[in-house]
Amino acid sequence: MDNQTFSSIAIIGVGLLGSSIAHSVRAYGGAGEVRLFDHNPDAREMAAKLVPGQMMASAGEAVQGADAVFLCVPVGALGKLTEEISADLKPGAILTDVGSVKQAVCTDMSASCPKTVHLIPGHPIAGTEKSGPASGFADLFLGAWHILTPLESDTPDYKTAIETLSRFWTILGANVELMAADRHDRVLAITSHLPHLIAYNIVATAYDMESVEEGEVVKYSAGGFRDFTRIAASDPIMWRDVFLNNKTAVLETLGRFSEDLAALQRAIRWSDGDMLVEEFKRARGIRKAIIEAGIDTDEPDFGRRSPKAAEPD
Amino acid sequence: MDNQTFSSIAIIGVGLLGSSIAHSVRAYGGAGEVRLFDHNPDAREMAAKLVPGQMMASAGEAVQGADAVFLCVPVGALGKLTEEISADLKPGAILTDVGSVKQAVCTDMSASCPKTVHLIPGHPIAGTEKSGPASGFADLFLGAWHILTPLESDTPDYKTAIETLSRFWTILGANVELMAADRHDRVLAITSHLPHLIAYNIVATAYDMESVEEGEVVKYSAGGFRDFTRIAASDPIMWRDVFLNNKTAVLETLGRFSEDLAALQRAIRWSDGDMLVEEFKRARGIRKAIIEAGIDTDEPDFGRRSPKAAEPD
Repeated sequence: MDNQTFSSIAIIGVGLLGSSIAHSVRAYGGAGEVRLFDHNPDAREMAAKLVPGQMMASAGEAVQGADAVFLCVPVGALGKLTEEISADLKPGAILTDVGSVKQAVCTDMSASCPKTVHLIPGHPIAGTEKSGPASGFADLFLGAWHILTPLESDTPDYKTAIETLSRFWTILGANVELMAADRHDRVLAITSHLPHLIAYNIVATAYDMESVEEGEVVKYSAGGFRDFTRIAASDPIMWRDVFLNNKTAVLETLGRFSEDLAALQRAIRWSDGDMLVEEFKRARGIRKAIIEAGIDTDEPDFGRRSPKAAEPD
Repeated sequence: MDNQTFSSIAIIGVGLLGSSIAHSVRAYGGAGEVRLFDHNPDAREMAAKLVPGQMMASAGEAVQGADAVFLCVPVGALGKLTEEISADLKPGAILTDVGSVKQAVCTDMSASCPKTVHLIPGHPIAGTEKSGPASGFADLFLGAWHILTPLESDTPDYKTAIETLSRFWTILGANVELMAADRHDRVLAITSHLPHLIAYNIVATAYDMESVEEGEVVKYSAGGFRDFTRIAASDPIMWRDVFLNNKTAVLETLGRFSEDLAALQRAIRWSDGDMLVEEFKRARGIRKAIIEAGIDTDEPDFGRRSPKAAEPD
């Protein structure tokens, strides 16, 4: 098979990302046998029906003989899971993950990863606000960046392992980038972690005002709020682990955000319209850069049609 | 004509909302003649080509004889514009607007609106991040709420005017609600004004970090940040006027937001995972309410396919 990089892979954790890898391999190749496991019995049962691959009885059993092992669990669970499977990993196998934080993950997974196994932490910049085995789909990684943060090792075997894993993600449609783990964590703190924290926060603030405004927060959410609730629908446990494991970069970025917000607040209080316009115009510039880089389309979307629009009465 | 409420209307300001009213009337009715004007010569020229209606030489000329006049300019310009056209308004005409703030607008427009004219301020909860005469389209108001904030008057003529204007917006596909202006401003502060301010702010924060991270903020914006830049692409002047004219409600809401954010920040610093999960779960609840109310669909969107996805190479 042209598109077969690994004879056998194991995916532990069959949520949005784990199940998407399985669907994607089925659609695009990259591996022969796919073995699955999830510690949650409900997820296991659902995945056995919906996700292409063989559901195993334990994580250890799933990883036995696998050329590559993908740990797709919340970042805070990766250390313990690595310990659980370490005795069952095949010498020469690749061990990777899909966590949104990389420094803490490198440390946690390194602690019990056997020396004979190639640990290459990874992070696909892809996702939806959905979670669980039913949320995965084959095209999730198409055109998305996949960041690998290899350890400091330049043995020929390790280099080959990085190349093989990169090829696998390329087959699934991703664009692979290598990056230092600390740099990854700083970049993602602003491009992903802070936006999620802010979205969660604004929704919580509105929630507390909800009783005051008699359901009107929900009713008139199309004015901008709606888009924040979408981001804030992401998995709570996954995000708790992200914030607790990228504490330094998140707090630093949050500090900058709060300083900037205080300046805007002051401009509003003192009616400094020029300062507001200047700031708002800068924001347009970065939007333009994102569209030019092909990361988003320029189609209007904020005024997303409500389901009612289809059937005016 | 069944769908004709007004013989003649005037639209002053042919940006996203003004031009959409013209397109919508052309498509769904509600008025016979449509007269247009814009103080910006470029917008005027573009609108003359793109927007259905007759472009006039001045605002005063446009409103002469009109049964209803729609002022579609930034909130801060409404008082002066009302003064400019007041002598040309037909006795018995309806004067309305589409501004995102209503208390300040009621005051500013009342100051020079003739007693013989029915002033009924309004606000369509509809829009995109685009602006200008080319951005309008006929279906913008389909299924959207349209809030009217009538003055305190219960003369039969004024009541009839409210009914007529409501019928007009219903013909364009909107669901009309009547509300007190101060209540409107408090509700919109949380559902629209704060989300926009936050979006502008996070993009500005990222902008300042951009040089540090060598373009990576743009490159990896699909992790959540991208969705904020879309909201932050809205018209800077319009939003400056919103914040300066709804100062009290915006500062009050912003105060609550900052308190809540400080609590989340503290939870991260002290690794209070339970508090984080509790807050994140609450956010999921309000998302559910928005979907149940039909304000948004439940389709995954945050992982919006990049243009590249269509052509993997």
